[in-house]
Amino acid sequence: MPSISIKGKSMPESPIRKLVPYAEKAKKRGIRVIHLNIGQPDIKTPQIALDAVKNNNIEVLSYSRTEGSDAYREKIAAYYSKKHIHVNAEQIIVTTGGSEALSFAMGSIADEGDEIIIPEPFYANYNGFATATGVNVVPVVSNIENNFALPPIEEFEKLITSKTKGILICNPGNPTGYLYSKEEIQKLAKIVKKHDLFLIADEVYREFTYDGREHYSILQEKGLEDHAIIVDSVSKRYSMCGARIGCLVSKNKEIIQTALKFAQARLSPPTYAQIASEAALATPQSYFDDVKTEYVSRRNILIDELSKINGVTVAKPQGAFYCIAQLPIQDADHFAQWLLDDFHIDDETVMVAPAAGFYATNGLGKNQIRIAYVLDKGSLKRAVRILGEALNVYPEG
Amino acid sequence: MPSISIKGKSMPESPIRKLVPYAEKAKKRGIRVIHLNIGQPDIKTPQIALDAVKNNNIEVLSYSRTEGSDAYREKIAAYYSKKHIHVNAEQIIVTTGGSEALSFAMGSIADEGDEIIIPEPFYANYNGFATATGVNVVPVVSNIENNFALPPIEEFEKLITSKTKGILICNPGNPTGYLYSKEEIQKLAKIVKKHDLFLIADEVYREFTYDGREHYSILQEKGLEDHAIIVDSVSKRYSMCGARIGCLVSKNKEIIQTALKFAQARLSPPTYAQIASEAALATPQSYFDDVKTEYVSRRNILIDELSKINGVTVAKPQGAFYCIAQLPIQDADHFAQWLLDDFHIDDETVMVAPAAGFYATNGLGKNQIRIAYVLDKGSLKRAVRILGEALNVYPEG
Repeated sequence: MPSISIKGKSMPESPIRKLVPYAEKAKKRGIRVIHLNIGQPDIKTPQIALDAVKNNNIEVLSYSRTEGSDAYREKIAAYYSKKHIHVNAEQIIVTTGGSEALSFAMGSIADEGDEIIIPEPFYANYNGFATATGVNVVPVVSNIENNFALPPIEEFEKLITSKTKGILICNPGNPTGYLYSKEEIQKLAKIVKKHDLFLIADEVYREFTYDGREHYSILQEKGLEDHAIIVDSVSKRYSMCGARIGCLVSKNKEIIQTALKFAQARLSPPTYAQIASEAALATPQSYFDDVKTEYVSRRNILIDELSKINGVTVAKPQGAFYCIAQLPIQDADHFAQWLLDDFHIDDETVMVAPAAGFYATNGLGKNQIRIAYVLDKGSLKRAVRILGEALNVYPEG
Repeated sequence: MPSISIKGKSMPESPIRKLVPYAEKAKKRGIRVIHLNIGQPDIKTPQIALDAVKNNNIEVLSYSRTEGSDAYREKIAAYYSKKHIHVNAEQIIVTTGGSEALSFAMGSIADEGDEIIIPEPFYANYNGFATATGVNVVPVVSNIENNFALPPIEEFEKLITSKTKGILICNPGNPTGYLYSKEEIQKLAKIVKKHDLFLIADEVYREFTYDGREHYSILQEKGLEDHAIIVDSVSKRYSMCGARIGCLVSKNKEIIQTALKFAQARLSPPTYAQIASEAALATPQSYFDDVKTEYVSRRNILIDELSKINGVTVAKPQGAFYCIAQLPIQDADHFAQWLLDDFHIDDETVMVAPAAGFYATNGLGKNQIRIAYVLDKGSLKRAVRILGEALNVYPEG
């Protein structure tokens, strides 16, 4: 058999993937599994987007423009303008999901062996894109005790070397639910300008901010034009995860020109999904208001109920729809597996995402789980009850 | 301004991209441009595929399965079985276009600095994927004089080093139109087994073979199971370039497991496009028969007319829908630009793809162009007439 490379082998596995067979076995035994582990919202996609695809009149499903059509990019620019982010169509490249925007961003700013600093815990797939691109992720630890706020800027500075090309944040955060304040963004702006770095912000959860807080984008920050790269996606905004449409946004011309070369290699983003995404931009504000109201009440139930469990610490999310909970256990991987294998109430159990996969530092997050509150309130309540009861009897293994 | 990496900057530009502004300027002057430069077929997408999308009943456009649904992959396996390629669903990963399958294949078999040998001229975007993955392309020259047949196997052996991880072919070939014979595939099989390499075959033009010739897949070759990786796509087969659905196929379990980790990082292929692609598998054989008849007559007109032009050498394609023509000029880049800028007959000119971008060896292909015969016969005839007249008056320079 031919030898397979180290690189391919060193690609990280999804933190949830190894639990999937346990979930499947549980289901075969007749156990219902409440999935707290995935960020796939149950919210309906805006009808206007679905209808646009159903009413399309394509006869030849041809390549679209590499960077997305002018019409769609102009509409995206208009959307940003309403968010106080002032860009034009030429500063936007439509991508196949936020995933591809991230790959393009990393590939454009970093060479093999270069470094990107990321506050941990962070979205696990950042590791995958970094490995595929040959970039080294340098983590800076944020803590559950202060809701995963931005680590002190000195902690970033300690990690900056000649190999450091940028800082990557997710705002609001997956998996933390933390929303960076304007002051925190300004601290980051200062450090990237001082050290000549890029600041990449994954802002795919921009709309999901709670308790009257407002999202402050890196592109709202004056003077950051040459440094800022936004990674965006329609996936969560319009509950259109299956579209696979996102975009990369930068006012730095050289970044756009470079990212465009990556885009050219893969020819174009998917056509049908662009039709849906362009139509989705006309989604009325009431849709977002309703969705936000729903998420806030889900979050409140989840946090309130989790807080009642002895020994559980939970960071209160101010955005997105995830939270990290710290449990009175040693090994969340084992606990998650045990939940699927050995525990149920009324033939129901829960699947959680062990948080260790969201940390780059070995050993961190082992007693934490990530919960996505993308389920109806009834399921969330039952899920937390199951977690609580399970912790009472869990024979730490 | 922050410093941008060498890697991003070294991403190759599409060979056509720099001509695009000239084409746009020509159009603004009222000149019609016949596009011989792009492989976007004018053939209608099968109605069954278009209807499946129009009749979808999605309410939440959710992530699909990372590797593609079981149902779709089983149908793909059944399609392959009809082509004498015997694989099962677990040996298939659905990808976002053949492009992504190629990226996954390169990333899975090669580390930064490793080498993949590719007969040149080759599909220009192989360079892009290689650069993005950090893989070095090592070209082995094939010649227009013998229709771009497989170079002597000794030429491959000369290039094999400890860094060589695989050989990549496109069969039938873009941009050459060359269809490798069973004997040529067997020669490649022998060398990859001898040197413990992978053989990646881009077989996206499998259906497009002419003059009674049959495609012989690398996975039809016994004993090659652990070495063979097929890259495939629905783009050309069903004239669905905008779907962005392809697949990677291998009987080597470790390759599938490794490629799946790359797939997990990008979550899932686009959902609507999978609906279209799954439905397209039921396209009747008559569709392909009609398409093939059409391409053969287009090719015949193109080759016959090109051969009449003084000083033009053209390789007769046996598959796909491209050909390379060698022109009595020094610099096809300049010629292509001049055609757009300074030449027209009855307010019409042509856009061609300079072939140098399809070679990795500097200086090769400078007097060659690639022509895609994806246009109606009338346009092809007019295009060749324009080329012929243009060559008569072209002021080389």
